[in-house]
Amino acid sequence: MLPIRFSGRRPLVAQLEAQMRQLIETGYLRPGTRAPSVRQFAADLGISTFTVANAYDRLVAANYLVSRRARGYFVAEKKLDNLSDPELREGSAIDALWLIRTLRAQGRDAIRAGAGILPSEWIDGAEFQRCARAALRSTAEGFMEYPSLLGHRPLRDMLALKLIEQGISVQTEQIVLTSGASHALDLALRVVVAPGDTLLVEEPCFYALFAQLRQMQIPFATVPRNADGLDLEALESTVRQHKPKAILVNSVLHNPTGGTLATHNAHRILSIAEEYDMQIIEDDIYGDFYEGRSFRLANLDQLKRVAYIGGFSKTVAASLRVGFIAANRNLAHRLGTLKLSTCLATPDLNERVIYELLASGSYRRQMERVRQRLTGARRRVISRLQALGFELALVPDGGFFLWARTLTGHDALSMAKDAAQIGLVLAPGPIFSPNGGPSTWVRFNAAHCDTDAFAERLATLLV
Amino acid sequence: MLPIRFSGRRPLVAQLEAQMRQLIETGYLRPGTRAPSVRQFAADLGISTFTVANAYDRLVAANYLVSRRARGYFVAEKKLDNLSDPELREGSAIDALWLIRTLRAQGRDAIRAGAGILPSEWIDGAEFQRCARAALRSTAEGFMEYPSLLGHRPLRDMLALKLIEQGISVQTEQIVLTSGASHALDLALRVVVAPGDTLLVEEPCFYALFAQLRQMQIPFATVPRNADGLDLEALESTVRQHKPKAILVNSVLHNPTGGTLATHNAHRILSIAEEYDMQIIEDDIYGDFYEGRSFRLANLDQLKRVAYIGGFSKTVAASLRVGFIAANRNLAHRLGTLKLSTCLATPDLNERVIYELLASGSYRRQMERVRQRLTGARRRVISRLQALGFELALVPDGGFFLWARTLTGHDALSMAKDAAQIGLVLAPGPIFSPNGGPSTWVRFNAAHCDTDAFAERLATLLV
Repeated sequence: MLPIRFSGRRPLVAQLEAQMRQLIETGYLRPGTRAPSVRQFAADLGISTFTVANAYDRLVAANYLVSRRARGYFVAEKKLDNLSDPELREGSAIDALWLIRTLRAQGRDAIRAGAGILPSEWIDGAEFQRCARAALRSTAEGFMEYPSLLGHRPLRDMLALKLIEQGISVQTEQIVLTSGASHALDLALRVVVAPGDTLLVEEPCFYALFAQLRQMQIPFATVPRNADGLDLEALESTVRQHKPKAILVNSVLHNPTGGTLATHNAHRILSIAEEYDMQIIEDDIYGDFYEGRSFRLANLDQLKRVAYIGGFSKTVAASLRVGFIAANRNLAHRLGTLKLSTCLATPDLNERVIYELLASGSYRRQMERVRQRLTGARRRVISRLQALGFELALVPDGGFFLWARTLTGHDALSMAKDAAQIGLVLAPGPIFSPNGGPSTWVRFNAAHCDTDAFAERLATLLV
Repeated sequence: MLPIRFSGRRPLVAQLEAQMRQLIETGYLRPGTRAPSVRQFAADLGISTFTVANAYDRLVAANYLVSRRARGYFVAEKKLDNLSDPELREGSAIDALWLIRTLRAQGRDAIRAGAGILPSEWIDGAEFQRCARAALRSTAEGFMEYPSLLGHRPLRDMLALKLIEQGISVQTEQIVLTSGASHALDLALRVVVAPGDTLLVEEPCFYALFAQLRQMQIPFATVPRNADGLDLEALESTVRQHKPKAILVNSVLHNPTGGTLATHNAHRILSIAEEYDMQIIEDDIYGDFYEGRSFRLANLDQLKRVAYIGGFSKTVAASLRVGFIAANRNLAHRLGTLKLSTCLATPDLNERVIYELLASGSYRRQMERVRQRLTGARRRVISRLQALGFELALVPDGGFFLWARTLTGHDALSMAKDAAQIGLVLAPGPIFSPNGGPSTWVRFNAAHCDTDAFAERLATLLV
């Protein structure tokens, strides 16, 4: 008998539906489990079969249950808890939200080739739980109190050490912890870019950015990203034309191309920024996936005009929302003050989890394993893509992104639409550009594509 | 022997200082513990006594260690991890930051009469740990993935139910989870108040607000808050004069006065808002401390023009940063979209902890205990204050805030300054006003003031 209780004046149907949703979402009722029959459930609960049938209909409509002819109702394979979010339900255009929606909506056997994160099973869940429990114990009596303003001090100390080891001279006071790298970018844009200022961004670029800039009403211009970095001629002429206040650069293992700034390219970007007094916001959330010693704008500039953003959503747990921004003292002070205004503080527990993972060496060991595994996966997926007639923009020095197009000129959007029908989620090129015009480029995630099933499904789209 | 390791090219002094800070902040070295002697520590680590002495000097300066003549170095009673945050170190004015700084800086025997939260020991830590562990287990493999955009669905369902029980008709889709109530307010202000729009706020009002509004460059006007709500004459004339876009009201157990809107006052506020087409942002973070059935603007308006903010920082754990905002569908959609841009999502684990606390009944039981305990504490502290010659602005119907002034006209700022010298932290009236002029009002937290020691220390300031 399922733990359903009715109370208050809300209609029984709505109460039953809400409680069944909870049982499914919390995993009490697992995917594939058979739900009680309508007749039996009604008898158990002492309500009419009409009410149960009505609630089941709603649950089927919301993809919580599936109805199998003559066999009854079963818990759906994927909970799809976001299909009822209004912003994810609306619109049929293939855009960034389409990708988020489609990635979530697909069942367990779908191939999430367009995902922006590692498969969950690549990460040691037991180790994560161990560190999280240790972090929880370490909060002791402090959980009731407001966390410190700039973030958990030991984690900030450790990040300072990590940056110093990467050749970026920084002190703990210059590091502000944020609610993921997105929050760091939000703070940086709010502090650096005044109303009317223009921002330079790369094209292609991670897809959440364009919506964010439109939302914040920040005018932007784009500069093409090539295999070794920014198109320098385009950069100079765009800077001259738009006099942008700042430029946002994803230097290492760029999303979506997988490319990393060559040293000479980085040097020129910094020189141009100095000449035109432009702030650089450097996004480095993929840096720890790089094979060998990588190189960043912050290495050249030592945080004078570079504000450096990092985070742990790609490497540890997107669900924890832990990121940071390092900047010169003046800018760090302004970022900290704005943080106080926008969220008071970031959650202490989450920062302690990341601290435990870093301090115990667990993070380092995991990243070594992941990098090694990705090396093989990238090599094999590149072969598979080439065998199917794709060409790569470049061969990345790490990470999971591969940016490729068919030589036969298949349109990426229609390919993505068809792929979704056969359980293959692709990230089509246009969603990484502000205007989203036709394109043949597709972003693949090597960690999700290293199977025969991937190649087989992709092949069916190319006939 | 302490676990200190040296590596890289960073000066040994800095490395030793950083690692000692960590050992102290993580509780490895507990408050009051004796640190190794300079000579012995230098010998153990194979470095010079000069280096150890230098690192110890820095740790003393940063309040991590205290030096006791002829006895050596000891770990400071309070870690003071925020004294090194630049924004908390600067300035000597008695303002909101002064209070935050002073509350953190005081030792364990200080009386935190000016605190804005409950004492940690009022909350059942074991119960919190139990629910947090359950929440952690429930994340299973999902920790690697991005959380759902609007927040953990079962918690949103449960909050919808909670609001419905309070007489506010709402559906889950209208609720957006945020990183504390501050983040909810940031989202609401960014969506509702366009550049140039004026915001109405109460005076006195919670102290973080004024810094936030200045930071966001939002012009504001104030309306006096009286015992039964807003000064309605002042409200009407200010609305006529400034044509504000929105008003922010802390309806139930208002910070700092402890007052709650009378129903006729709430009705007039809503009528004026309707007449002048003004959005209402209702802050209800203290509502669950109310004795009996409380009443909100959202009850009258049913979320048509009221956006309703709640959170768990005051009742469960400020360190978790879990809050929410409920609004009409159109506004909720815009808030959700802005949330996507500002932080992508809020942390799933933290929302699961709150869900566990609510779903297990632990929250309800705890709040019953806390309310009962506060009833007695308020009554006794009111007697103590009256015996010392204070008069109260009103007798609150719940919560921990008492707003009082001496009949002898002692200046609140100088009283707070003197109090800090004897381990009594007071929240002086001026920090709750935008201009901070002289005032005799003081905000007391009944949960922290229910002792003879409080009355004794306070008495010494009044002679």
